[in-house]
Amino acid sequence: MIVIPGEMAPFVDVPDCRVWDGGDITPLVRAEFYVPSYMAGEWAFEVMAEMPALQVCQLPTAGYEHALAHLPPGVTLCNAAGVHDASTAELAVGLMLTRLRRLDDMARAMSDGTFLHDRFDSLADKRVLIVGAGGIGQALARRLEGFECEVVLVGRTEREGVRARTDLDGLLPESDVVVLALPLDDASRGMVDARFLSRMKDGALLVNVARGGIADTGAILAEVGRLTFALDVTDPEPLPADHPLWRAPGVFITPHVGGNTTAFLPRIGRLITDQVRRWQSGAELRNVIVS
Amino acid sequence: MIVIPGEMAPFVDVPDCRVWDGGDITPLVRAEFYVPSYMAGEWAFEVMAEMPALQVCQLPTAGYEHALAHLPPGVTLCNAAGVHDASTAELAVGLMLTRLRRLDDMARAMSDGTFLHDRFDSLADKRVLIVGAGGIGQALARRLEGFECEVVLVGRTEREGVRARTDLDGLLPESDVVVLALPLDDASRGMVDARFLSRMKDGALLVNVARGGIADTGAILAEVGRLTFALDVTDPEPLPADHPLWRAPGVFITPHVGGNTTAFLPRIGRLITDQVRRWQSGAELRNVIVS
Repeated sequence: MIVIPGEMAPFVDVPDCRVWDGGDITPLVRAEFYVPSYMAGEWAFEVMAEMPALQVCQLPTAGYEHALAHLPPGVTLCNAAGVHDASTAELAVGLMLTRLRRLDDMARAMSDGTFLHDRFDSLADKRVLIVGAGGIGQALARRLEGFECEVVLVGRTEREGVRARTDLDGLLPESDVVVLALPLDDASRGMVDARFLSRMKDGALLVNVARGGIADTGAILAEVGRLTFALDVTDPEPLPADHPLWRAPGVFITPHVGGNTTAFLPRIGRLITDQVRRWQSGAELRNVIVS
Repeated sequence: MIVIPGEMAPFVDVPDCRVWDGGDITPLVRAEFYVPSYMAGEWAFEVMAEMPALQVCQLPTAGYEHALAHLPPGVTLCNAAGVHDASTAELAVGLMLTRLRRLDDMARAMSDGTFLHDRFDSLADKRVLIVGAGGIGQALARRLEGFECEVVLVGRTEREGVRARTDLDGLLPESDVVVLALPLDDASRGMVDARFLSRMKDGALLVNVARGGIADTGAILAEVGRLTFALDVTDPEPLPADHPLWRAPGVFITPHVGGNTTAFLPRIGRLITDQVRRWQSGAELRNVIVS
């Protein structure tokens, strides 16, 4: 039996899916292919212990650490790599334009009817460094193609069209905008520290649509004034209401909304449909994290 | 003699340009090719009466109505069509993303540290109707290519890739975002009235990066709540500080900053350089409004 959250059902083109959004767990005893709710708590993973027939857990997120602890032995775990690329890359463009063109300041100036006209930065003519050449980084690069800016992609290893992360020291001082779009792992945790930021040029913009843990919050606060920031993710997250980052000048913060948009349901629906069909026909699954 | 504003001088690759930013008009008696200051007042045009040798007035703006009244007989007037396309089209994308993804609300929520997480709209999967298939409309269409949205261009007349303005009645109800990127003229003045807006579907977004006079402010106010708006231009402009549009929910207003960005100087510099060389070599000028 295939068990999916109710909101995804209209987007999944597979017969006989069972909807489950929490509550009575009796029907789960027959679950073979299970999709936990998006933005769900621990309970959506703990419940796998009540699924003796479970073969596949298809996550609706790219992150999977939270599921690993609850994965029963022998169950295949797949993530949703790719599903959030469109929405997250789009937000990165929105964050860049908001900060460069001061749309955040203009939104705030509306309350007292201030006409904040001045000459601000364009994205055109800027050099944009995208750190992370995976799905989100590539989706962002495609979106920037029409903007008359120069885009440099940086990945773990050098390849066609992608510079190596070891080149960052030389690339940072030449970049007007630096976008973090890489996964959080042992190599990236705390990567954006005081030294990294000190390599960025005066007035440059750092955008983080990856994970808060990649950038050191203290180092960011120390560069407020010289650099400018647009952060969809922070450390800690959510930021406490009295955290100084909320009111630091030149810092724009969005509440981790990279992936959670109307783009989500059609894309997760297509992934689930494809994965169930693969599973039913015995074909290889995509995005396998644990098999 | 070629007379240009000081801020453009570093971007103009022509020998022996004379810089003039107002003040003593004695040197203007020899002006043959004149570029008025950007965002200048009436004085920058009135001064043409003091230029008996004037042959060409090259405006830094796309609009030219304000110059016509002061144009001496026999002087060629050229506008800056194309110079503001990059900056204005880029702002249109910024306005769309700001309103769809509620970045304006998030900017305002920062002051009290509110974590405004919810599922908002993506640009991906939306149908975007661009009214105006000239330089800005085309520049916007190019920028939207990577965003997984559907783009429909509407021009005065039907042609390859462009629908006719007479098709608007059928196109408006199918569009999630409608962007105004057409010039203000007798046909477009007041075009976006109560009837136009009533054709737009519930929750749709109207973006205006053209001219305030194209959309009726009373009609906009009457649709607040059902539709949402992102307006770089308004009527009147600037909006008085106590105007209700400033505080209408779902309305984002920027202070006519479509063209005035860092993208301006390199682009006006390239146009002036090309025009002066054409003029010096007796070749035909571009963007001629009056000859």
